[in-house]
Amino acid sequence: MNIEKHLKKLIIKKPLKLDCGKTIKDFPIAYETYGSLNSKKDNAILVFHALTGDQFVTGLNPITKKEGWWSYAVGPDKAIDTNKYFVICSNVIGGCMGSYGPSHKDPENNKVFGKNFPVITINDIVNAQYNLLEHFGIDKLFSITGGSMGGMQVLQFISNFPDKCKTVIPIATTSSHSAQNIALNELGRQAITADTNWKDGNYISEKTNPAKGLAVARMAAHITYLSKKGLQEKFGRKLQEREDLKFGFDADFQIESYLRYQGSVFVDRFDANSYLYITRAMDYFDLARQFKGSLSGAFKKTKAKFFIISFTSDWLYPTQENKDIVIALNSIGADVGFVEIESDKGHDSFLLDIPEFLNALKNFLDKSYNN
Amino acid sequence: MNIEKHLKKLIIKKPLKLDCGKTIKDFPIAYETYGSLNSKKDNAILVFHALTGDQFVTGLNPITKKEGWWSYAVGPDKAIDTNKYFVICSNVIGGCMGSYGPSHKDPENNKVFGKNFPVITINDIVNAQYNLLEHFGIDKLFSITGGSMGGMQVLQFISNFPDKCKTVIPIATTSSHSAQNIALNELGRQAITADTNWKDGNYISEKTNPAKGLAVARMAAHITYLSKKGLQEKFGRKLQEREDLKFGFDADFQIESYLRYQGSVFVDRFDANSYLYITRAMDYFDLARQFKGSLSGAFKKTKAKFFIISFTSDWLYPTQENKDIVIALNSIGADVGFVEIESDKGHDSFLLDIPEFLNALKNFLDKSYNN
Repeated sequence: MNIEKHLKKLIIKKPLKLDCGKTIKDFPIAYETYGSLNSKKDNAILVFHALTGDQFVTGLNPITKKEGWWSYAVGPDKAIDTNKYFVICSNVIGGCMGSYGPSHKDPENNKVFGKNFPVITINDIVNAQYNLLEHFGIDKLFSITGGSMGGMQVLQFISNFPDKCKTVIPIATTSSHSAQNIALNELGRQAITADTNWKDGNYISEKTNPAKGLAVARMAAHITYLSKKGLQEKFGRKLQEREDLKFGFDADFQIESYLRYQGSVFVDRFDANSYLYITRAMDYFDLARQFKGSLSGAFKKTKAKFFIISFTSDWLYPTQENKDIVIALNSIGADVGFVEIESDKGHDSFLLDIPEFLNALKNFLDKSYNN
Repeated sequence: MNIEKHLKKLIIKKPLKLDCGKTIKDFPIAYETYGSLNSKKDNAILVFHALTGDQFVTGLNPITKKEGWWSYAVGPDKAIDTNKYFVICSNVIGGCMGSYGPSHKDPENNKVFGKNFPVITINDIVNAQYNLLEHFGIDKLFSITGGSMGGMQVLQFISNFPDKCKTVIPIATTSSHSAQNIALNELGRQAITADTNWKDGNYISEKTNPAKGLAVARMAAHITYLSKKGLQEKFGRKLQEREDLKFGFDADFQIESYLRYQGSVFVDRFDANSYLYITRAMDYFDLARQFKGSLSGAFKKTKAKFFIISFTSDWLYPTQENKDIVIALNSIGADVGFVEIESDKGHDSFLLDIPEFLNALKNFLDKSYNN
C-alpha cells in the first residue's frame, strides 16, 4: 500500500543532535492537525502518541480505515474539543507512519537503514517534535498530553521546554521504565529478532517480512494492556464458535482467537524495526536520572499546571508510578492535580470510552483555558 | 545427550482412555522416589510437578546437573522430610523427561508423534499417575502436593480418587485457568509455532530445532513467575557489565541479560512440542465444569484434610483463586486450612527458600502424620 499520499510532512532542516551522539538533519516529521489555530495562537494542544499509535488521532485513519486511536477523547465537543482547541500530533521519529525511521534510506549510502538507524530516546523524540511549534508559529502551547509512552513524552517535553506549555497532562505513564516494563519490551524484541525473516533487520531490502515475530510481540504487549479482571469479564473461558473443546491447537477459546486477530491486524500496519526502536526508547526513559536522581529537578523551571491521571487496574504503569510524579511535583510546590479513575479495562483505559476519565480531562482543560 | 540411562520407568500395560476419546496403552511413565516406603505403606507423598518441572524433585538432577526443582522443600529434615516420608514424583504424560509424550514414536507407524500425539488433559495426567500407587502397592497416600500446574493435578487427583489420600496440599494454583492464563499460554504456543524450525511439529524427524521460539515462550512465562516489585528490587534499571547505555540492542540492562539466559538454558532441557501439549492441558483445566459448574462437587466424596497455600505477590494464580477452592471446600464442611504467605517473589515463591512457607508445609504434614 502506498501510504505517502495520506501523509502531511514537515522536513526538519535544522540539525538535531541525538542522545547517542549522532546528528540528523533534513528529516521528515509526519503530522496531523485537528481544529483551527486561533489568531492569538493560544489554543494549541500537542498530543503525543503511544508505542503503536500514530498522528491520526481521531476520525477515520486513512491507512487503517479505522477510527483514530483517541477518537473517544478528541473531536468536536469531546474532551479535547476541536471546536475550541487546535490539536497537533506527529508520528514519533523511529516510527513507521512517515516520520524519520528505520525503514527510511540512509542518505550516506542510499540503503534502507534497518538496524543502522540510530537508537533514539524519548528526549530525541520530543526535541524533534518541538520543531512543530516553530512551524506553526506557536510561542506557547495551551496543553500537552498523551497516555503511556505519550505521557513519557509529555514529561520530557515540559522538562526540556519549561516555558512552552500552560498545562501538562501525563496519563497512565511513568517517569522511569521499571524492570518489568523493560522485561516485557525485551520479550517483544526477542520475538521479532527470533523470526528468521527479520534478516538481522534487513527484511525490507531482502524482501521478507518478520510478520510472525511481530505478531507474537503484539500479542505479548496486548495482554499487558488489559487487566486480569477485564479479560475474565470479557472472555472468561468462552469457546470460539464451537460447542465443546476440540482437543487440538486451533483457537478453542475466544481469548485465543482474539489474540491471534490482534497480532494479525497489527502486522499490516506496523514495522518490526520501528517496534524495536520505539520500545528501546521507552526502556531508556528515566527522567530522574537526567537530573541526578531527583525527579523534581525535571520540573523546577516550569510554572505549568499539571494534571495527572491513572487507572485502578493498570498494572503496566500502575497508579503508584503516576503518584510518584505527583509527589515529585508537590515537593517543589508545583501546581498539580491528580485523579485515579476506577476502571477494569487495564492500561488500555486511556484509549476507551470511560466517561469519568473523559469528563475529568475535559473539565481540567476547559477550566484552565478560561482562566 | 542420551538421558535414558538416568530414567526409571514404569510401563503402563493397562489401557487408559483419554478425555479426547483415544486410548493409550503400553506407555512409559518416568518417575523418581526419595526416602523409603515404610512397612505399613502409609508414609507416601505423591508430588506433582509444574509446567516445566520433572520427576527430579530434589538433589542433583542428573540431566541438568542442577539442584532439583523443589530442593528447598524436599529432602532429609526438610519440610517434606525424606527421613520420614516416601516421596514419589513422575514426569507428566505429554512431557519430555521419559514419560509418554510427543517426542515418542507412534506405535501405529513408528514415526515420531509430534502434533499427532493426542491432546491430553490434567485428568489424563493424573489417571496415568495413579498407576504408581498400584506399582508400589500403596492403598492410601499420606499426602499429595504440588504448586502451580502441580496444584491442578492435586485437585484433580483427589476428585478422581477421593479415598486414596489422607491429606491434600494444593499450592499457588487455581481450579480453572482464567482468560489471562490462557492468553499467556497461547502467547507461548504462538512463539513456538512462529519459529520456522518448528516445521509443523515435525522438527525431530526434520532434524531442526525451534529453539528461538521456545526461548521466547520461556521468557514470556518467566516474567509471569515474578512480581513487578520483586523484579524491581532484584534488577531495577541496573546495567549489565557497562557504565552507561550503549545505544544498541544488546542487553544493556541486567533484566534483559537475565531473561535471555533463562530462555537459552531452558531450550537445552525442554521439548517445544511438550510445551504446547502441557500448556494446552493447563488451559483445558476447569474442575468445576466437570461437576456441572459446582467446584464443591469435586470434593464431596472425600474425607481428606486439605491445606491450601497462596502467596501475596503471585499474580498468575492469585490468592483469590486459591481462596475460591477454600470457599468451595468450606461450603461442604470439608476439613480445610488456608494460609497466604507474604512474599515479593511472585508465583515462583513456591519453589524458593521462604521459611514461613516451608514451615507451614512442614507443620501441616508432621501434625497430620502423627494424628
